[in-house]
Amino acid sequence: MNPVVITVAITGSVPRKKDNPAVPILPPEQVESTRDAYEAGATLVHIHVRNNDESSSSDPERFRQVQEGVRRHCPGIIVQFSTGGRGRDPALRSSSLYLRPDMASLSTGSVNFPTIVYENHTTLVEEMAGKMKEFGIRPEIEIFDLSHLHGARRLANKGLLDERPHIQFVMGVQNALPAEERLLDILLNEAKHLFPACTWTAAGIGRHQAQVMEWALARGADAVR
Amino acid sequence: MNPVVITVAITGSVPRKKDNPAVPILPPEQVESTRDAYEAGATLVHIHVRNNDESSSSDPERFRQVQEGVRRHCPGIIVQFSTGGRGRDPALRSSSLYLRPDMASLSTGSVNFPTIVYENHTTLVEEMAGKMKEFGIRPEIEIFDLSHLHGARRLANKGLLDERPHIQFVMGVQNALPAEERLLDILLNEAKHLFPACTWTAAGIGRHQAQVMEWALARGADAVR
Ligand SMILES: [Zn+2]
Ligand SMILES: [Zn+2]
Ligand SMILES: [Zn+2]
Ligand SMILES: [Zn+2]
Repeated sequence: MNPVVITVAITGSVPRKKDNPAVPILPPEQVESTRDAYEAGATLVHIHVRNNDESSSSDPERFRQVQEGVRRHCPGIIVQFSTGGRGRDPALRSSSLYLRPDMASLSTGSVNFPTIVYENHTTLVEEMAGKMKEFGIRPEIEIFDLSHLHGARRLANKGLLDERPHIQFVMGVQNALPAEERLLDILLNEAKHLFPACTWTAAGIGRHQAQVMEWALARGADAVR
Repeated sequence: MNPVVITVAITGSVPRKKDNPAVPILPPEQVESTRDAYEAGATLVHIHVRNNDESSSSDPERFRQVQEGVRRHCPGIIVQFSTGGRGRDPALRSSSLYLRPDMASLSTGSVNFPTIVYENHTTLVEEMAGKMKEFGIRPEIEIFDLSHLHGARRLANKGLLDERPHIQFVMGVQNALPAEERLLDILLNEAKHLFPACTWTAAGIGRHQAQVMEWALARGADAVR
């Protein structure tokens, strides 16, 4: 088996302390949680920051604190900021990219989520991709539906993405695509058709995590989360 | 070859008289246009209504006039109202269904469109499906992306759709799914996986129309548009 990148998504945008007291909310907790995962083998950290009331935040100061702490305590770990939209003002989703994390998530299309329409207007997607290019940040393309791969292809056609993108398939979000092996194959085939040189990973939400990870490893994924 | 239903979409939501002077805008023009298509072989009419300034309308009185005129001049034609969202207030998209057309379009997910996010919030979709069930209207499920088929599946699981839905794949809308034969096969396979008894059609937008129709006929579609 090839080596794989193990990603840890320490906080996410949904769970609260009441769901799981171990969810790290404040930057020092997030750094501590990342260090634990790093010592257990994680080499990429996916970062969301939160306000003190646990709601989603876009505060660059929080992102800065987590990045600094993680870089100090986990030498060599790949730092990835979320630009994801749940609970965040669209205009602020890319406001921390000037901090030049190694990577940032980039959604390339819209889809239904549990209680909202996850809106990624084409102009917003292009603006975020442009900023990532400007700051030398490697995007992780978040794929929640088939058309999102074509959204990524259009970015590449416009020079906003290179021909070797890193792609994550996200499965099991309620009202988007279910976590089904057949659907992973459809997405993966299409990704390879559009970007023969891509690297990829897959993430199952909640109870689907271990199952999707297994399907991904069986297909030679470059990373798991 | 099996017989196929030929659908005419007389007006749509986008073109204006300045794009094509033949686009029918007012109800009498729409009835006249439908009659021409009916005499040429169309057996289903897909109806959008417009305001006098040609913008999209949800006015039940306009829908009523077109339905009445079409039923009088085109005996036996299947009348299908659009509940599509381009340029319409979401709360009014289903406001004409009490007129009991034979069919109505029903989008079951969200996706990017040329200049907007085409928003079909899950609660709105369920509300529209519920009204169609209440009024005995047969939905035509509009599929712009893979997850929209799973949106339809969830409606059926909730009793808001039967196991033999009529499904239309819409291809070539900018920022949604391109018109590609491979993508039609993906959507069609998935539809048959989720609804083995479904009937189906496919529509290519603009310059893709004839090409998509050809692919659909080659695969035994039940209807073309
Ligand atoms: Zn995230
Ligand atoms: Zn292609
Ligand atoms: Zn329409
Ligand atoms: Zn299945």
